[in-house]
Amino acid sequence: MDFFSSENLDSLNKIYRINLVNSITGYKSANLIGSISNKGAENLAIFSSITHLGSNPALLSLFVRPNVVPRNTYKNIKEKKVFTVNHISKEKIDDAHHTSAKYDENISEFDKTNFQPEYKENWGAPFVKDSAVQLGCKYVDEYYIKENGCSMIVASIEIIFIRKGLLQNDGWVDLSKGDIITINGLDAYALPETVKRLKYARPK
Amino acid sequence: MDFFSSENLDSLNKIYRINLVNSITGYKSANLIGSISNKGAENLAIFSSITHLGSNPALLSLFVRPNVVPRNTYKNIKEKKVFTVNHISKEKIDDAHHTSAKYDENISEFDKTNFQPEYKENWGAPFVKDSAVQLGCKYVDEYYIKENGCSMIVASIEIIFIRKGLLQNDGWVDLSKGDIITINGLDAYALPETVKRLKYARPK
Repeated sequence: MDFFSSENLDSLNKIYRINLVNSITGYKSANLIGSISNKGAENLAIFSSITHLGSNPALLSLFVRPNVVPRNTYKNIKEKKVFTVNHISKEKIDDAHHTSAKYDENISEFDKTNFQPEYKENWGAPFVKDSAVQLGCKYVDEYYIKENGCSMIVASIEIIFIRKGLLQNDGWVDLSKGDIITINGLDAYALPETVKRLKYARPK
Repeated sequence: MDFFSSENLDSLNKIYRINLVNSITGYKSANLIGSISNKGAENLAIFSSITHLGSNPALLSLFVRPNVVPRNTYKNIKEKKVFTVNHISKEKIDDAHHTSAKYDENISEFDKTNFQPEYKENWGAPFVKDSAVQLGCKYVDEYYIKENGCSMIVASIEIIFIRKGLLQNDGWVDLSKGDIITINGLDAYALPETVKRLKYARPK
């Protein structure tokens, strides 16, 4: 097997290290966060750190690196306390990736891609039109991670839109029916196909 | 589209709600955490909340629900300060899922599945033999999430083993070459196929 010790890791060049460490924890969620500033400037940014945190209350978490790309997202979330989470389908990979480019705050990624903002249900932030799963989320709390200066945002899931055909009888949302993608590392996009569902596991 | 408001969510039955909320944040990582108690009792448990937290230092995070299934994992991590993270391949889905059954602390999931513990490089916790990606991790910190009583563990990635053929020239690990799976919701397993890698995005 290929092997790296912590000493090896420390001696790697920056790009190699980022590629390696970003891919070795497994597949990541792929989401576009839609937000808007108090002045009305819309923002759209791809995130791969959104994680299910709990079902009751319905909570998710995400990491923000205040000094890096999605700083507009962070600022907007703090200002407005609401944002949207929108899933990415296979045919939108290029545009979704492009939202990671560093645009000034006054330039909307909606204008630089084919994504269109959609406002509905009086939600205070733009959804991504035609996204198969759209969540309206509220800022709840923030935890500063002292080990690397990141912040973890905790948000509640307030409203949910799901394209017809994905939601199954028992509440499970079959993401593969929306051609929803996942991220491997920093810049690789993969399309999962469902293998199987299993029953609640009991001791044998 | 199917639509749920927070009022709808509150009125759903428990299973429906768990299925729904677990699947709407996107695909999740699929990992087996190997650990061992001070008394030498091994434990293996599937987790879907392991997330990349940073590359320098190399950090990951995971959520533990102290009163739910993986409580032995949590106890072992706190006792020994080390654990392992092992990726799950398509042919091991059934055994991996079975590690979520509630066994007593003195029963090892290694004895109840075909997974075999592997000790190497003097690491103080068992790896899963033949897993395509194996990480030796150290407990660094814990953040109590007051919103739902979960804890987020922050751990450093200290040693890395990768099956030959997955590691690419620039450090990227192509998980699809190990038939590594991802999780959709609570109990559905999916196999991703790489669609494309994209270059670093710049404003246009």
